[in-house]
Amino acid sequence: MTQWVYNFGGGTAEGNTTMKNLLGGKGANLAEMASLGLPVPPGFTMTTEVCTTYYDNGEVYPDGLDDDVAKGIAHIETLTGKAFGDPKNPLLVSVRSGARASMPGMMDTVLNLGLNDDTAEGLAKLSGDRRFALDSYRRFITMYSDVVMGVHHHTFEDILDEYKDNQGLMLDTDITPDGWAEIIGLYKDAVRDALGRDFPQDPREQLQGAIDAVFGSWMNDRAVVYRRLNDIPAAWGTAVNVQAMVFGNMGDTSATGVAFTRDPSTGENTYYGEFLINAQGEDVVAGIRTPQTLTKVARENMGDNEPSMEEAMPEVYGQLAATFAKLESHYRDMQDIEFTVEQGKLWMLQTRTGKRTARAALKIAVDMAEAGQITKSEALMRIEPLSLDQLLHPTLDADAPRDLIAMGLPASPGAAIGEVVFDSDKAELRAKAGHKVILVRTETSPEDIHGMHAAEAIVTARGGMTSHAAVVARGMGRPCVSGAGSIRIDEAAGQMSITGRIVKEGDIVTVDGATGQVFAGEVDMVQPELSGDFSKVMAWADELRTMSIRTNAETPLDVQTARDFGAEGIGLCRTEHMFFEADRLGYFREMILAQDKAGREAALAKILPVQRADFAAIFRIMADETKSLPCTIRLLDPPLHEFLPHSEDDIRKVAETIGVPASEMMARSRELAESNPMLGHRGCRLGISYPEIYEMQARAIFEAQIEVENETGVMPIAEVMIPLVSSAKELEILKKAIEGVAEDIASKGVAPEYIIGTMIELPRAALRAGDIAHHAEFFSFGTNDLTQTTFGLSRDDAGRFLPDYVAQGIVEKDPFVTLDQDGVGDLIQIAVERGKATRPDIKLGICGEHGGDPASIVFCHNAGLNYVSCSPYRVPIARLSAAQAAIMASEG
Amino acid sequence: MTQWVYNFGGGTAEGNTTMKNLLGGKGANLAEMASLGLPVPPGFTMTTEVCTTYYDNGEVYPDGLDDDVAKGIAHIETLTGKAFGDPKNPLLVSVRSGARASMPGMMDTVLNLGLNDDTAEGLAKLSGDRRFALDSYRRFITMYSDVVMGVHHHTFEDILDEYKDNQGLMLDTDITPDGWAEIIGLYKDAVRDALGRDFPQDPREQLQGAIDAVFGSWMNDRAVVYRRLNDIPAAWGTAVNVQAMVFGNMGDTSATGVAFTRDPSTGENTYYGEFLINAQGEDVVAGIRTPQTLTKVARENMGDNEPSMEEAMPEVYGQLAATFAKLESHYRDMQDIEFTVEQGKLWMLQTRTGKRTARAALKIAVDMAEAGQITKSEALMRIEPLSLDQLLHPTLDADAPRDLIAMGLPASPGAAIGEVVFDSDKAELRAKAGHKVILVRTETSPEDIHGMHAAEAIVTARGGMTSHAAVVARGMGRPCVSGAGSIRIDEAAGQMSITGRIVKEGDIVTVDGATGQVFAGEVDMVQPELSGDFSKVMAWADELRTMSIRTNAETPLDVQTARDFGAEGIGLCRTEHMFFEADRLGYFREMILAQDKAGREAALAKILPVQRADFAAIFRIMADETKSLPCTIRLLDPPLHEFLPHSEDDIRKVAETIGVPASEMMARSRELAESNPMLGHRGCRLGISYPEIYEMQARAIFEAQIEVENETGVMPIAEVMIPLVSSAKELEILKKAIEGVAEDIASKGVAPEYIIGTMIELPRAALRAGDIAHHAEFFSFGTNDLTQTTFGLSRDDAGRFLPDYVAQGIVEKDPFVTLDQDGVGDLIQIAVERGKATRPDIKLGICGEHGGDPASIVFCHNAGLNYVSCSPYRVPIARLSAAQAAIMASEG
Repeated sequence: MTQWVYNFGGGTAEGNTTMKNLLGGKGANLAEMASLGLPVPPGFTMTTEVCTTYYDNGEVYPDGLDDDVAKGIAHIETLTGKAFGDPKNPLLVSVRSGARASMPGMMDTVLNLGLNDDTAEGLAKLSGDRRFALDSYRRFITMYSDVVMGVHHHTFEDILDEYKDNQGLMLDTDITPDGWAEIIGLYKDAVRDALGRDFPQDPREQLQGAIDAVFGSWMNDRAVVYRRLNDIPAAWGTAVNVQAMVFGNMGDTSATGVAFTRDPSTGENTYYGEFLINAQGEDVVAGIRTPQTLTKVARENMGDNEPSMEEAMPEVYGQLAATFAKLESHYRDMQDIEFTVEQGKLWMLQTRTGKRTARAALKIAVDMAEAGQITKSEALMRIEPLSLDQLLHPTLDADAPRDLIAMGLPASPGAAIGEVVFDSDKAELRAKAGHKVILVRTETSPEDIHGMHAAEAIVTARGGMTSHAAVVARGMGRPCVSGAGSIRIDEAAGQMSITGRIVKEGDIVTVDGATGQVFAGEVDMVQPELSGDFSKVMAWADELRTMSIRTNAETPLDVQTARDFGAEGIGLCRTEHMFFEADRLGYFREMILAQDKAGREAALAKILPVQRADFAAIFRIMADETKSLPCTIRLLDPPLHEFLPHSEDDIRKVAETIGVPASEMMARSRELAESNPMLGHRGCRLGISYPEIYEMQARAIFEAQIEVENETGVMPIAEVMIPLVSSAKELEILKKAIEGVAEDIASKGVAPEYIIGTMIELPRAALRAGDIAHHAEFFSFGTNDLTQTTFGLSRDDAGRFLPDYVAQGIVEKDPFVTLDQDGVGDLIQIAVERGKATRPDIKLGICGEHGGDPASIVFCHNAGLNYVSCSPYRVPIARLSAAQAAIMASEG
Repeated sequence: MTQWVYNFGGGTAEGNTTMKNLLGGKGANLAEMASLGLPVPPGFTMTTEVCTTYYDNGEVYPDGLDDDVAKGIAHIETLTGKAFGDPKNPLLVSVRSGARASMPGMMDTVLNLGLNDDTAEGLAKLSGDRRFALDSYRRFITMYSDVVMGVHHHTFEDILDEYKDNQGLMLDTDITPDGWAEIIGLYKDAVRDALGRDFPQDPREQLQGAIDAVFGSWMNDRAVVYRRLNDIPAAWGTAVNVQAMVFGNMGDTSATGVAFTRDPSTGENTYYGEFLINAQGEDVVAGIRTPQTLTKVARENMGDNEPSMEEAMPEVYGQLAATFAKLESHYRDMQDIEFTVEQGKLWMLQTRTGKRTARAALKIAVDMAEAGQITKSEALMRIEPLSLDQLLHPTLDADAPRDLIAMGLPASPGAAIGEVVFDSDKAELRAKAGHKVILVRTETSPEDIHGMHAAEAIVTARGGMTSHAAVVARGMGRPCVSGAGSIRIDEAAGQMSITGRIVKEGDIVTVDGATGQVFAGEVDMVQPELSGDFSKVMAWADELRTMSIRTNAETPLDVQTARDFGAEGIGLCRTEHMFFEADRLGYFREMILAQDKAGREAALAKILPVQRADFAAIFRIMADETKSLPCTIRLLDPPLHEFLPHSEDDIRKVAETIGVPASEMMARSRELAESNPMLGHRGCRLGISYPEIYEMQARAIFEAQIEVENETGVMPIAEVMIPLVSSAKELEILKKAIEGVAEDIASKGVAPEYIIGTMIELPRAALRAGDIAHHAEFFSFGTNDLTQTTFGLSRDDAGRFLPDYVAQGIVEKDPFVTLDQDGVGDLIQIAVERGKATRPDIKLGICGEHGGDPASIVFCHNAGLNYVSCSPYRVPIARLSAAQAAIMASEG
């Protein structure tokens, strides 16, 4: 018999932290905490299998579930000594979702369940606080009606506001217990009016409704979007946790809070969190009341007036601190914790591994490794490679002039510049149209996820460091300023005012999430200084990885940047980019327009010295006193028509400049036009048709090598790469021509040092790798084109339907971002196997954009590649990913 | 030690007919005939290895060759009792090329070698005919100077003409022996004037020069072109045969001739050939004198006045007939023979398997099989599948009005219509520009090969049935009329006159190669009636083949044609062709322009009945009383923009017709435009984006099935095919939708009979065939697109460089014509293996154009495919090819 329900509480539990797939993160950790002897309100977890069975069976629960739930309730009753529905000593429970991966705010929660007209009065007697009891009851009616019954919470808020207006009251706390009783009556009438039935009084009926709602919320729109953005499969399902309520709102000895055991923004080893006295947990997370700090130091740092928890509740704070230590040492990682204090007693409601910024992740990993808490490998595995991107990008120039317009909390670090928008839909639209936008909201809610995703940065007028905006922005790596209280948004007018100053939608602002500042206009940026933690992590990664990391670069700036980031060579130097520069595009066009080989050679002769200088510049950067890093140079790849102007106007202008008749240029342009340029006359096909082009390029490479060797005494290492090969014979012919150039140069004195290889970027090249390897000393997988041809998918055109494909689960991820291991990867493995069979020591690399994608890098490691090559800013990501791949492989 | 030279003659030989690769076709068969005891002038063959070694070693002959040649000459001297260079009894030899495959007229030949001033006089004494001896000497000087020394033969013809003019002589035969001696002196002077050295008098020097020239001619332009057209590798090399001369020009008891043991045009079992009394072999082949018939019957049939050989030389004719019988029974195939009669003695100079028309090949194969000379399998293997194409095409309608303008010999059957051109270069140019041309020449020479290839038909004013034009045209399958003596071509004026009537270049004529007639203008054509031999061969092929043959067709005409040709089903019905027809293109455009799904559905509802009627028409043709043949129907494949007008004018016109603003249509057209439509939003990607299109098509198919079942009582078999699948999930989604339509229809009464499968036309589909087969009941390999994506080669664009690729040997053949077995074939094999692992009984077929290519069909058989599908006219070719594949496979 499947066990559908797992109990916890009273110092033991049926589950534990390893059972996250079955119990969800929250349930597994509640069980673990209970077993550790921490004060956890007793409860039970309905497993994720209940959820998946429910959906697989057309929304029918599995047999036996009802009995298990009844036993779970009995278990809670036993441990608490309370009884569900008993007016004398009523048991109240919370019903919360809890998926395998955290999906904050995406699914439904019901608190205070078990209250009805009788138990509310019973709770009043028992607690001696009728106001608290009725406040809890009206909260329950609001939440339950909204979440379970579909009566919008505005209905109840309107009743409350109207009541206060009628009574001339300002604050909720001004309402008397009898007033609350009256309001509760109005609430119940409203439910009956809306639905034609009464608010349920039977706690078991309430429970079933709440369970239905929480499982149902797994499929709500918000959750579906969140899962898509975060790559969470729908098939995982959610667990549901039913747990005895504890109350942070039972007066001034009660409180509720959230905390991180370290600073999730910087990684500092100090407690970080917020709490509210006399409140329920939702009040903290929702960001409606501004919470107080946990520690005295934090209060002082923030210049806060309200006492910290350390000061207000020193004894409970001491218990909390001890619990933090116990949890961090048990879980060996920074924890994100929810707790409640009920009349002076601490209860733990949740612990989980805390989300953190990239900077914090680095610092925490390094600190814990250096303290011996975790190994270096574990430290490396803790850092999400893509998150490093946040550290590599520019920050505001300290010396740049700036015009500060608003100040809030530094909720998520990073700087960004963009147009102000006030609406998430609009943010998404503008971003799709290519604009950089800054989303400014009073506060954010789960409905804003898509807008936050589209924005460069997020600014909110309300909410703290753990508000929705802050948590989500940190998770997404977006800069965020939260609680910038001076901002007043007037959406209708399309503007905001900040202490009288008007900023209109579309105005440019600069956001600094590290300081919580917002500036008018653009503020100059500077390159990041990478912290010592970064260098340590990179050094550890370099120790552990076995693949080399190269870069795709051709401008001296990019080459230098990549080398600074630790690139160990160039994996792809795209020579055609050099032809697009103004000083040589004219010559190149001359070559295209030439009538014969002699004409082409004359034009190429003009390009030779320029291209030689380009290569020499690259070789200089890649050389030092003792050695030179290898540089893979790809010969001309794109079709010739890409170099000609296209509009009639441009053609006329360019023709005049070059001095040829416009009609001739138009004719040549028409002649060269292709139906499918991606599959056209390009790559080595040009080399076959016009050998003089590749010969000129080879000469430029070899002569540049000798020039740099003369200067430095070190011979640069050139790896000449032939693109778009589909058969061994192409390579054989072109290799012979290039070797001819090298021999010619060698005959005049010094021989250049080079090898010749090819890109594997067509399915046929992968299949014929065995033949091709006879002529290739290296293979570089060009996974951009290999993906296009393997899928029969043009990257330029796929944008129209690929999002649908991802949404419908036809492709798991965009195959141009993450390598399609099943198809393209299969071809790579075939090519590796066949290539090595011919030439066991063949050098293997990847130079498609997948070379900078962590999942793809793991694939490359496992496929036996020698290196990956990626864009300069991806080099650190690749170094870490390669180390993670090696660690995972060594751990099997 | 390699044996470079093989002797033959005197009833024995060192070689035999199986050694064609080494000795060439001519050498191997001379050896074989010698061993059979036939009268073969003695000689020796220098092997093809001499040629390949010569070219591999930078045009240096192998060591030891000179000795071997000297021994060969000694061997001939011994057998003939003559001596090389001996004035008293001079040995004369011929030096001829002889490659593995026949290359008629492409390489050089030297006859009468060994003559010089002394031996010519010696020959005069010996033969008692000084005129013959000097005539031979002057022929030798002309030929040797032209072929070996590079002095153009016109030089000598001019001298001869001038001499005759000066002497007032009309014919060569009017020249006296002394006259010839004088002319020979002038010839020798001309050589000395041109080259500054004397015509060589040393026979051994002459021999070396001739050998050099013949091996050298392997690489001449004509030979290179011919090899490319006929897929003959340069690496094969040629052999050279040196053989004692025999003389057909030693008076009226001498003759020379060529013959086929059966009629190579019709296949009739009658001798077929020509001879000339008192002539050398070159005179027959060159078509300069009109030759006489071999048999009395032939003479009578042709209304010839000159006696046949049977009548003129009855005794020798009897020997010849006996030799024919012996050779045909020995070689078990029709032979093509050259012979010479020297003063009443028959000498055999060559035998080889004769080229024949498709009709003749069929008849000979059937006759020989029915006579028990060969097996049915052998008969089938003797027929070149592609040659059947010649039999399937229209002939002139007997009842059509016609305007006969010229009459010649029926040199190669078939009818054609085209524009007259008089020059081979122009023929090629016009044909490339898309025109159908008829090449009209006084006579053709090897320099005309490219023009003949480009032409629809060839007409010559001179030459017989075995003239160059006739032989080559039959080999190429081009209709040919030769010897249409009334034609006078005036190339300069760009016209020809035929008994006073002028036909200008560019005028249309109709040629009937079966009757030897040329008509002005276009004559109506009729479908061919296929002979009984054709049906027999097809029936034998059907017995032996194991693959089914289907057709790619969608119009009722094509479907009916294919069924008449024996198609056993439809392998590819391209539904989009149906949308291009005028009555539905408007609706389809409405659908494209619709703003939403409802709009699209409204337009599709209008297309449904039309498309249903299309399918019903096809099902009717493919059904008979008892069963229905399977019809694979591919759902919409091309991108939507293909259905919209492109020019602004067209857009405006169409927009007006449909009643939408032109701006809207332009906007939609721009929106749909793609950079690489081949890799764009097409195939099943449209089905995913717009499920309503595929649902309409499925409904049309299923409703048509039920309609035809109601009419005929037989349920048509539909195989619904989803194009451009790259993942199992696409197929899963679309299959579900189609099944939904079928269930809906079934719920109303009758369930349609169908299976659902997919095209495998993307590399990823081949690689993921294991997954895809879970949802596909059949795979059809779409090798057109699979070739494009595997090679990364757009068929629309490849024309610019693919010819270079073939010329440089990068691809062996155009991969869009013959399947690339190494690359695309590898993917097919992967897909077959993986698909069968999932679904062992999966139905496998091919519907790319390769399905009609014989070599590709053999591959399909070996890969385990169940059927091939091809265009209607290819169906018979495919039936025969499939049988040949099965025969070859069974013979291992």
